Amino acid sequence: MQLYSYFRSSAAYRVRIALNLKGLDYQIKPVHLLADGGQQHHAAYRKLNPAELVPTLVDGDATLTQSLAIIEYLDETYPATPLLPADALGRAHVRALAQAIACDTHPVNNLRVLRYLSRELDVEQEQRDQWYRHWVNLGLQAVEHMLVDSAKTGRFCHGDQPGLADAVLVPQVFNARRLQCDLSSVPNITRIDAACQELEAFWQAAPDNQPDAPAT
Amino acid sequence: MQLYSYFRSSAAYRVRIALNLKGLDYQIKPVHLLADGGQQHHAAYRKLNPAELVPTLVDGDATLTQSLAIIEYLDETYPATPLLPADALGRAHVRALAQAIACDTHPVNNLRVLRYLSRELDVEQEQRDQWYRHWVNLGLQAVEHMLVDSAKTGRFCHGDQPGLADAVLVPQVFNARRLQCDLSSVPNITRIDAACQELEAFWQAAPDNQPDAPAT
Repeated sequence: MQLYSYFRSSAAYRVRIALNLKGLDYQIKPVHLLADGGQQHHAAYRKLNPAELVPTLVDGDATLTQSLAIIEYLDETYPATPLLPADALGRAHVRALAQAIACDTHPVNNLRVLRYLSRELDVEQEQRDQWYRHWVNLGLQAVEHMLVDSAKTGRFCHGDQPGLADAVLVPQVFNARRLQCDLSSVPNITRIDAACQELEAFWQAAPDNQPDAPAT
Repeated sequence: MQLYSYFRSSAAYRVRIALNLKGLDYQIKPVHLLADGGQQHHAAYRKLNPAELVPTLVDGDATLTQSLAIIEYLDETYPATPLLPADALGRAHVRALAQAIACDTHPVNNLRVLRYLSRELDVEQEQRDQWYRHWVNLGLQAVEHMLVDSAKTGRFCHGDQPGLADAVLVPQVFNARRLQCDLSSVPNITRIDAACQELEAFWQAAPDNQPDAPAT
């Protein structure tokens, strides 16, 4: 399998975690979102991913886009080490946690949205950072409440095995820290993030450990 | 079942379509997003949906949030009239279409985001409308390309039966029309939308046909 990825992309980071959790072999194909006018906009990549976003997963003849759809495909196609619970209600809860981040939180802070704020609306860096923190805080507060309300919350988002919700949560927490968001009011989230960071599947997927990360 | 819904909410509209397509009985519980400071922020509703967003579906003892998670739950729990294909690749494609709208397009134009633009960043109505159209155009172009590229595109987004992707697409097209977006470059989308509008399941779910729509 080949994963078209950018080291700092949250959506690619989610899929890297999922592939690692499932122990699947894959090759990273870097797509630099900033270099060369954005390699995601180049014709060759656009043929794989018409939305001009990362990630894209190529598995044999299949080309897959959208991080959550990719992770569900992996879970259905390679069922060892499941990332979603066996019961419909559990799956609905895990998907809702994932979507509270992947739909409600992350897209509003995506690179192209932040650029639009700066370039089209002349929003200053400080206001842009406030925007970022506002949506991260709102999203993480919602997830924290969902974790507190659920009897199924365990060492990880759903029980004591990591899964889809954790694969989506950890990249969002990484971003929150990078932008100095205050995480003191989301103790379940920081506890689960710490539990995830102990696992090789998570830290090997981290931006700094990617082949396309700049040398430090 | 009770669906907490706002007539004009895209996410609620998706779930109404899905419930109708599956022929499931449900009662609408209106949550007015603008009245009383936003009924979605009231304590009673927050207990059901800590993200303070619509929709929420109550099915017996279960309380479910996030429109895509709700639709997948309905499809798994009430398998008659499936809304997702039987094969993993087909499901991945349908989910990717749905997420191209539900993750990449709709959240950036959500009510709370538009309000932040106006109230916190002093963005004028005209620039706000441009913002709206910019993200709708980008999202619908991506979906159009995905439809053109797929051999499975039929009368509907995937084959000749309506499903999850159509339930997400139609509310986005409704919004696009409301904001006078130019749809001339997305002929597959407008063709599929027209096919959907012929079905009672879709038009009964439309904003104007909801019990909480203002009388015209």
